[in-house]
Amino acid sequence: MRVLGIDPGLTRCGFGVVDGVPGRAPTLVDVGVARTPADLDVARRLVRLEVAVEEWLLRHRPDVVAVERVFAQHNVTSVMGTAQAAGVAMLVAARHGLPVVLHTPSEVKAAVTGSGRADKAQVGAMVARILRLDAPPRPADAADAVALAIAHVWRGPAVNRYAEAVAAHARPARLPRTTPRRVS
Amino acid sequence: MRVLGIDPGLTRCGFGVVDGVPGRAPTLVDVGVARTPADLDVARRLVRLEVAVEEWLLRHRPDVVAVERVFAQHNVTSVMGTAQAAGVAMLVAARHGLPVVLHTPSEVKAAVTGSGRADKAQVGAMVARILRLDAPPRPADAADAVALAIAHVWRGPAVNRYAEAVAAHARPARLPRTTPRRVS
Repeated sequence: MRVLGIDPGLTRCGFGVVDGVPGRAPTLVDVGVARTPADLDVARRLVRLEVAVEEWLLRHRPDVVAVERVFAQHNVTSVMGTAQAAGVAMLVAARHGLPVVLHTPSEVKAAVTGSGRADKAQVGAMVARILRLDAPPRPADAADAVALAIAHVWRGPAVNRYAEAVAAHARPARLPRTTPRRVS
Repeated sequence: MRVLGIDPGLTRCGFGVVDGVPGRAPTLVDVGVARTPADLDVARRLVRLEVAVEEWLLRHRPDVVAVERVFAQHNVTSVMGTAQAAGVAMLVAARHGLPVVLHTPSEVKAAVTGSGRADKAQVGAMVARILRLDAPPRPADAADAVALAIAHVWRGPAVNRYAEAVAAHARPARLPRTTPRRVS
């Protein structure tokens, strides 16, 4: 299973791609961030982000996209931008017919470090150890995106199967048409 | 000036198109809502909404898109969906190279009713009066979208010129190339 993890944001949006199966150490495929200029209006920053998400999907063809779930927090202005960035990531993934699964930051931290309240350094260190890297991916948004992808692999098939069922249900049916049999 | 007002939402997204100039009564061009099914996952609801926004833009070719600014409020789950719906509306408008302007609910109420704390019924009644309709557009989200478009026309050229300058700046420059004059 190839997972694209996306840590949404307008200033920096983290992307991390891993290949893996539950219970085994996943392999890092690619990691990076997309930035959008702060002096551009939000609508145009969302367009830049859309292009970046498209590029990551086309380059790596993931089976599923994991996006960090955004909560309303202290900094209201920034959280709205983050929610909109997450919305664009979800939109683009769904347009490609991919299952989209949201994980909360604490679910990701718990999956990767064993504690839902781990700090950024601890998450980065565990990402490096799991993937056998010399150092955590930089910046932190990139490491968070990789952690999200690892967490998605490790959280196991139950939640994933559910997401795939939802995606399959939502995808336009393209089954070959058969002639209805007439019941005589 | 033709304005498309969008009152963003996943369950109901309001659309209202008016033609007008500051200081005169605008004309209603079209009004309606797009709904997305609550049993679909959010990513796929955003795709449906994207299609709806595209349709409204292509059908009416507005000069500018006014979107209601979303604030974090009591109902956190719903506000995130609304923020993401607003993000999709802004994204699609920006992709068409259109200026996107956000107005707060109280700015809209103040522009249309004279009070930033007017209730929904009052906004609907004023929308009907301004546009010489027999009754307010239904549902309320549709009336709100029209109010947003009227407010955008009436809030005048200053804010609009700013948005257009931002859009022009953000749009890729397509000016004819001239040979630079050499200063001897």
